[in-house]
Amino acid sequence: MAAFCEEEGGRFGLACLGSRLLTGVTAPEAARELRDGDGVTLAEAMTGAGLDPARLGADEELLASIGAFVELHIEQGSALDGLGAAVGIAEGIWPHGRWRLDFTGQADHAGTTRLTDRRDPMLPYAATVLEARQAAAACGALATFGKVTAEPGGANAISSAVRAWLDARAPDQGVLDHMVGQIEATARRAAEAQGVEVSMRRESFTPPVEFDPALRARLAAALAGRGIAAPALPTGAGHDAGVLAARVPTAMLFVRNPTGVSHSPAEHADLADCEAGVVALAAVLEELTSR
Amino acid sequence: MAAFCEEEGGRFGLACLGSRLLTGVTAPEAARELRDGDGVTLAEAMTGAGLDPARLGADEELLASIGAFVELHIEQGSALDGLGAAVGIAEGIWPHGRWRLDFTGQADHAGTTRLTDRRDPMLPYAATVLEARQAAAACGALATFGKVTAEPGGANAISSAVRAWLDARAPDQGVLDHMVGQIEATARRAAEAQGVEVSMRRESFTPPVEFDPALRARLAAALAGRGIAAPALPTGAGHDAGVLAARVPTAMLFVRNPTGVSHSPAEHADLADCEAGVVALAAVLEELTSR
Repeated sequence: MAAFCEEEGGRFGLACLGSRLLTGVTAPEAARELRDGDGVTLAEAMTGAGLDPARLGADEELLASIGAFVELHIEQGSALDGLGAAVGIAEGIWPHGRWRLDFTGQADHAGTTRLTDRRDPMLPYAATVLEARQAAAACGALATFGKVTAEPGGANAISSAVRAWLDARAPDQGVLDHMVGQIEATARRAAEAQGVEVSMRRESFTPPVEFDPALRARLAAALAGRGIAAPALPTGAGHDAGVLAARVPTAMLFVRNPTGVSHSPAEHADLADCEAGVVALAAVLEELTSR
Repeated sequence: MAAFCEEEGGRFGLACLGSRLLTGVTAPEAARELRDGDGVTLAEAMTGAGLDPARLGADEELLASIGAFVELHIEQGSALDGLGAAVGIAEGIWPHGRWRLDFTGQADHAGTTRLTDRRDPMLPYAATVLEARQAAAACGALATFGKVTAEPGGANAISSAVRAWLDARAPDQGVLDHMVGQIEATARRAAEAQGVEVSMRRESFTPPVEFDPALRARLAAALAGRGIAAPALPTGAGHDAGVLAARVPTAMLFVRNPTGVSHSPAEHADLADCEAGVVALAAVLEELTSR
């Protein structure tokens, strides 16, 4: 049994922070300096909660003691629902990452500054949002802007800066690189046309993950032996299992999500399917501990 | 001498709140319910500061006692600098207003939701930003998005809602109505294409203002008598003087702004020009009180 903190990166901006620290993917000194939206560092938050930030870091002894890691998760899509299956087995995770774009212009009065005198960073941001969708559609990939802040943020002020985060994912690394390159090129072109500076920095990245083929085959066999059909599925979402896969034989089980919706109050699994997931996980545990 | 609160609408979102209340343009019951970004009402904030919100409202006796209102302000543009003049006299204020747009879609996981299944409100917002600039350029007007918030605001989540504020100004009412209509049409079309709902609501509006012609002529003559050349200028910015103009003979003096920049740390007037503004205001006061 393992429980990892900050899987969503909701407070300190780095998803799967707990498993990244355990496996050494994220260095403890970098993690201690991560800041939340109020400027509080992870080290300060840990101290405030009575924890010792000096103890952060990879634990090779613990890692070596793990025979296998299997994560049970609701499906974040509706493939299982389409297949009429309560439970599925993940094949792997698309490569994905998060890029921060800072568009920097010139704050000014919205009522008195001629259009031709403006350096408004909101305009290249808007062009970049539209390009991201277009590029993703052309590549069979995913690109999303879900977080944006405008500074100073006054309704009657031209922004001095617009800061935005791009989430990008693709079936393979080449497609991802191509798509992100296209989005960056548009951001630079649109910024230059407005006299705006733009910087683009990769904040996090997860290479493609293929879950352990032998473990997946054992899981499928164990479930089939109990009459549970568990189809194989890809996924675009990051998980602690994706991080651990680099160090430990790892697999994931998904439970049917009838709405297919995720990260929203509409996310839902039926009780019967949750029970099927528990039965599947118990079968897996039994199989893995039986020899 | 008068000092009005909340001229920028920085906390409660309604510019010129003080002068709007004094003149009855804003009803006290509506003002008391205005909320700041933390959800605190104006009434609560006043009570917290030891003031009585019941005393808000138009004051006819006070208004009747005002013979003239002259506001001294830095120019929010560089017209005076171009003309080589330290001080100018405002002709009037463009009609202008603020519209709130709420784009409402469906929160979902950025890594697992197919593009075709998304209802992402960031996309029609971006299309509307670009349309606003294009429509303003075509109309010889101004349109700006300087304030935007995305909900829930997670870097790996498709937004459930994007809320944005449009600032729009034009030389006359017909042009303003036409431009805002074009922007709204694009917002609705782009929202529909993404399965997103959009509502657009005018939050504040100031009709065109022409400052009192007789008072302007008196000011110009008084300044000319002291050797101060004060050219006449239009402005796109709202001011307490614009609100008071509906009830009191009103004028405005501008002081040269070499950068032309406003609402930014780069806003600046030379000390000598500030002194010229003070001399001009003193001359005006002397003229207005001399008979």
